Amino acid sequence: MDHGATSNLAPFASISHRFACQVQWGDCDPAGIIFYPTYFRWMDAATWSFMDSVGYTAKRMRSEHLAMPLVSAECQFLAPALQADRCSVISRITRFGGTSFALAHEVMRDDATLLAKGSETRVWGRFASGPGSPMKGEPIPEALKQLFRAS
Amino acid sequence: MDHGATSNLAPFASISHRFACQVQWGDCDPAGIIFYPTYFRWMDAATWSFMDSVGYTAKRMRSEHLAMPLVSAECQFLAPALQADRCSVISRITRFGGTSFALAHEVMRDDATLLAKGSETRVWGRFASGPGSPMKGEPIPEALKQLFRAS
Amino acid sequence: MDHGATSNLAPFASISHRFACQVQWGDCDPAGIIFYPTYFRWMDAATWSFMDSVGYTAKRMRSEHLAMPLVSAECQFLAPALQADRCSVISRITRFGGTSFALAHEVMRDDATLLAKGSETRVWGRFASGPGSPMKGEPIPEALKQLFRAS
Amino acid sequence: MDHGATSNLAPFASISHRFACQVQWGDCDPAGIIFYPTYFRWMDAATWSFMDSVGYTAKRMRSEHLAMPLVSAECQFLAPALQADRCSVISRITRFGGTSFALAHEVMRDDATLLAKGSETRVWGRFASGPGSPMKGEPIPEALKQLFRAS
Repeated sequence: MDHGATSNLAPFASISHRFACQVQWGDCDPAGIIFYPTYFRWMDAATWSFMDSVGYTAKRMRSEHLAMPLVSAECQFLAPALQADRCSVISRITRFGGTSFALAHEVMRDDATLLAKGSETRVWGRFASGPGSPMKGEPIPEALKQLFRAS
Repeated sequence: MDHGATSNLAPFASISHRFACQVQWGDCDPAGIIFYPTYFRWMDAATWSFMDSVGYTAKRMRSEHLAMPLVSAECQFLAPALQADRCSVISRITRFGGTSFALAHEVMRDDATLLAKGSETRVWGRFASGPGSPMKGEPIPEALKQLFRAS
Repeated sequence: MDHGATSNLAPFASISHRFACQVQWGDCDPAGIIFYPTYFRWMDAATWSFMDSVGYTAKRMRSEHLAMPLVSAECQFLAPALQADRCSVISRITRFGGTSFALAHEVMRDDATLLAKGSETRVWGRFASGPGSPMKGEPIPEALKQLFRAS
Repeated sequence: MDHGATSNLAPFASISHRFACQVQWGDCDPAGIIFYPTYFRWMDAATWSFMDSVGYTAKRMRSEHLAMPLVSAECQFLAPALQADRCSVISRITRFGGTSFALAHEVMRDDATLLAKGSETRVWGRFASGPGSPMKGEPIPEALKQLFRAS
């Protein structure tokens, strides 16, 4: 992972993406509310869904040996979620760097309550020879960045 | 996965293996007891640990492109487990077939209460060209079977 | 959990229920396919969704101190699932006993490939005094059974 | 959750606690490395283990209707972890406020490689009437703070 590359991330005017999800019984803990790592699972799934929405499907990522390892992630938990709550993760790109990028995610319940606000910084990486082999950050193609630009 | 191969599994006198684990807050659900898929996560981890104990470490499995995909799994839940309960999964091989094998797992709490009894049937498989590529069942080496034989 | 009650389960002609789900990156393992306990997480969520569909919502279950602890669960894995695969869990009740019931679940990919077939046996239980307190199996109301009956 | 209370957190000289863990097959993703929400699961388990170590066991927390809901969490991922890697989470309290507190966690592999550095801010909360009922932040007892003070 190329951590140095995260210092020069430039602000970016991004489209946004909506990923639908629902709190399941097994996503909750004995306090009866969502177990917090669930929000990070959702943010990860939302990022893959965002990529899919601009043409970088899971299948394409696999066949081109691409992945998006994390540099950092954080989340603020604003209101508790309960089993069966239907939610959306609203994601956008906040910055693009040379080989890394950052996303902001908002988790909104369907009654418009903001449950959580988080972010991820990721490297754009390629496996040397397929999944399981070493991965190296590589320059994010300009064409890819344009796919996320708000018009 | 070679499902036909599971019909001719022969009984096997196996060594047993102990895998230690503990029920975490996030492994429990709003009923305040363990969320049942946790037992299957433990049985999977116990199987890998069992393999490790006879010399088939995760590192070796990776470098030899080996994996152990599931044919089936089942579990009976005998007593509820609570957060912080320290447990062991006691595993043994029950049958070896041509390209598949079966394991029995008992989940015991450290106070000797039997919490769950389960089993898995798995294929001994190899990736065509590393993780992510297609996998094919292959004959289980006799030498491997001997590593599990009770003396 | 009332295990004795499982012996006299009677066959039942059930409506069926569809629960939609998708394989996420984090649901897969280094073999690049779904990690098998994910199927049990799905079967659990499908059961809660089935209950919800007949009026036993998560909210009602909570307020009436009801839960559905497991007696046993099993699954056969028929075809591997990959990240992004869209699937359905098709569930129906197979048997109702005095205080327990059994469900059959089929996991179907949206291309109509049957990925997995499983079942769960559960107790119909009530907490003595809310979540976290002891739970006891109790007779399944006839009115509840009728909600699941195929007409 | 009492978010206002997090502004006046004072620095604190804390004992540290070690929580042992191991990367399992199912904790890894198709890239062959740890799926990042696993680190948050570990940090949560490490916090509960830390509490246990000063006498606030899971059993006591349950019987006194105490919980530790999250205000925020973040983590920096410094090096990838592989299946079977044995690790420790080293935790300490960094600040105590009126009703909230913050922890720093370092995830170290047993070969002394620092894998991740994270933190959590939590509220010290009590359920109105047992798990599942509403929870309210309450003043952290001075006696509890002293249990964590480095001597």
